[in-house]
Amino acid sequence: MTLLGNARILTMDSHMRDIAKGWIEIEDGLIAGLGEGPPPQGKDALDMGGDLIMPGMVNTHCHMAMTLFRGLGEDIDDRLYRYILPLERDCVTAPVVAAGSRLAALEMIRGGVTTVADMYYFEAEVGRAVAEAGMRSIVGQTLGDFDAPDHDTFDEAFALTDALVDEFESHPLVTASIAPHAPYSTDIPVMARVARWADDHPHNPVQMHLAESDAELAWCADRHDARPVKVTARAGLLRPGLIAAHCLHIDDAEAERLAENGVGVAHNARSNGKAGRGIAPVETMRAAGVPVGLASDGAMSGNTLDLFAQFAPASMFQKILGQSRATLPAREVIRMATIEGARVLGLADRIGSLEPGKAADLIRIRLDDPRVQPIYDIYSALVFALHACDVRATMVAGRWLMRERAAETLDQAKVIADAIQVAGAFNDRIAELDRSMK
Amino acid sequence: MTLLGNARILTMDSHMRDIAKGWIEIEDGLIAGLGEGPPPQGKDALDMGGDLIMPGMVNTHCHMAMTLFRGLGEDIDDRLYRYILPLERDCVTAPVVAAGSRLAALEMIRGGVTTVADMYYFEAEVGRAVAEAGMRSIVGQTLGDFDAPDHDTFDEAFALTDALVDEFESHPLVTASIAPHAPYSTDIPVMARVARWADDHPHNPVQMHLAESDAELAWCADRHDARPVKVTARAGLLRPGLIAAHCLHIDDAEAERLAENGVGVAHNARSNGKAGRGIAPVETMRAAGVPVGLASDGAMSGNTLDLFAQFAPASMFQKILGQSRATLPAREVIRMATIEGARVLGLADRIGSLEPGKAADLIRIRLDDPRVQPIYDIYSALVFALHACDVRATMVAGRWLMRERAAETLDQAKVIADAIQVAGAFNDRIAELDRSMK
Repeated sequence: MTLLGNARILTMDSHMRDIAKGWIEIEDGLIAGLGEGPPPQGKDALDMGGDLIMPGMVNTHCHMAMTLFRGLGEDIDDRLYRYILPLERDCVTAPVVAAGSRLAALEMIRGGVTTVADMYYFEAEVGRAVAEAGMRSIVGQTLGDFDAPDHDTFDEAFALTDALVDEFESHPLVTASIAPHAPYSTDIPVMARVARWADDHPHNPVQMHLAESDAELAWCADRHDARPVKVTARAGLLRPGLIAAHCLHIDDAEAERLAENGVGVAHNARSNGKAGRGIAPVETMRAAGVPVGLASDGAMSGNTLDLFAQFAPASMFQKILGQSRATLPAREVIRMATIEGARVLGLADRIGSLEPGKAADLIRIRLDDPRVQPIYDIYSALVFALHACDVRATMVAGRWLMRERAAETLDQAKVIADAIQVAGAFNDRIAELDRSMK
Repeated sequence: MTLLGNARILTMDSHMRDIAKGWIEIEDGLIAGLGEGPPPQGKDALDMGGDLIMPGMVNTHCHMAMTLFRGLGEDIDDRLYRYILPLERDCVTAPVVAAGSRLAALEMIRGGVTTVADMYYFEAEVGRAVAEAGMRSIVGQTLGDFDAPDHDTFDEAFALTDALVDEFESHPLVTASIAPHAPYSTDIPVMARVARWADDHPHNPVQMHLAESDAELAWCADRHDARPVKVTARAGLLRPGLIAAHCLHIDDAEAERLAENGVGVAHNARSNGKAGRGIAPVETMRAAGVPVGLASDGAMSGNTLDLFAQFAPASMFQKILGQSRATLPAREVIRMATIEGARVLGLADRIGSLEPGKAADLIRIRLDDPRVQPIYDIYSALVFALHACDVRATMVAGRWLMRERAAETLDQAKVIADAIQVAGAFNDRIAELDRSMK
């Protein structure tokens, strides 16, 4: 049993309680109770010193191993073909994915993320890394019709996915997933095959990039005389359990359709903003009833993997789109980062809010930095003043993964050294690619 | 003499040198020399451990004392009339401005800002606070035709400005300034009087909000059948030494006009984005030759006062406007935060880059956080991965204002406690205001 006392607590449950001074009791990895005032009589509590306790954050879309490509090709429009695809084809191996995923897990734990949905290659390595790190996660094997580093055919990709399901079937924190890359890189026959796979695996989510770019719109129009949402629906993939990443090009009718079909959306504000691709209609989708979570995307696109870095962009983009300071209030941003993100991943019965019976996935945040005080509104402080570095401790399923900024499940120095070593090899290949461009 | 060795150095001078491992020598508050490799023979250097040394950042527009209103009225469209103006009229006194300015200075020093341009009321208190803190600054007495907390008439405001000039005339770091609030709150006769004042005070800059809102456009059209830039020009105020804040509503011809007249622009990305007011045409202004710096605005608008918080929004907004990942590269963002900001303030001969003869205003930044590594591009790391909390030390004119995150010129605990006490009094008044709204 663990008892945390003298904490400011945001529950993020349906009552949205902001407890000025309260306690939380944790037993067997679950929240046993919480309340206002001093802890229940006769129990010793860990003194949280007035720090904030809130649910751990949910990163709904990530390519963890791409931490190794962090900021690579910054500000270059053709970076996908110039750097990402050649490097992935030539340099991404199982050990590389393991190293990048460990760096990502370390970064997220230090940034207050307790649950992540990932899609990449050699995904069993990602699953092993997050299992080692102690994070909760959905790990998705990517399949696409391009030169992937871990499969040549779709048959091979499905076999990898099946193996992933087998490996993590009984894992308490890691859930296997299938991740068709995007409509344009799988097309309807493969998406339909994924839909049949999903019928047979009702507890394994599907992750896919959807309605992300003008090029995708053009492809869908040329090939199918339709928009991406309709193409996805034709394949039978617009269904509960689909985690659709990006969704920039969604009109009102499509937002309704996503809602009716139980699709969740991962909103990647920084990644989209940096790509100059425009602003996703988050308010439209939420108003239609679509759960929309926040997401970092890979570090080559969004640079960092915590959600604090997403808060201000997500908020400001909607205010600019809505031409009003009142659009997407700070409180709603924090809902997206917690309970709504949990809904996107189909995990809202277990995580996303602090209430008895839910998993003890929580974070402790210090509020005493001069950049944060005074605080009139705790949600405003979270969205616009607090940073990843203010997270003091991170717990998943009752286990501390970080305390006082020190990781407890990963060897920080080794993880960083390994990542830098891999980046050195990448740099050699990048130099060759740059020479071949000249 | 101080010698810093084993540092990665960004000079931000015209050569834009990125020295992988080098040294900087500081003497009498100035940079005496810098170079690659180990420090010159026979000298003991402080080991920077591979950390980054770069010029201290220049915050070109701030209302420092408004830290005491941080995040107040978040997400509320009518917050200006509902909260700001009543609170300023009722609660802002000289001691309140002193307390808020000290908090702001503390926050900026910890966030890597070494120079700030401020405009507010009781501005002598701001000047004293930044002088005590050891920051470089331009402090502007605000004048406007509303209920200001420190003057009832423009004559009084001019008298306060003259006193400010007298008080700081020979101060090595603090420069007095005059700050007409905006065209709509001063109108042409007062702006013309400011222009005459500026003729007599060629070394004291003028600060003004310009072309910020639709309401301002409407006022200028109604009153003068012109746009804000033209109204300002008619008053004779479109001139070298004018620091124009915001400049959202600037067309191509106006950008040329700002450039021809030697006006500098303070770009407040977060403040503008949060207000839902749209995106300032930064690329257009820079292409026309207007120096554009970055700015925090007051903490009621932008929440935090470091420039790291401005980097990603400033970059992403231009990429969204330009519909390209290549718009406003990370390197240019860092130029805006340093040498270009110095140009906006008319201080580019003294600060903004690291070169012999310039002031030793510099910051030390650690690069070893898991969220930052690996680094392919140092400008990308600065813009999208590093935070205020990564600033390890801050120096102005050769004097350390912070080392190892500990402020050396201000008592952090006392500054925060004082601020929280003032906020408590504000909260009582806010409760009254909220009751009166019902």
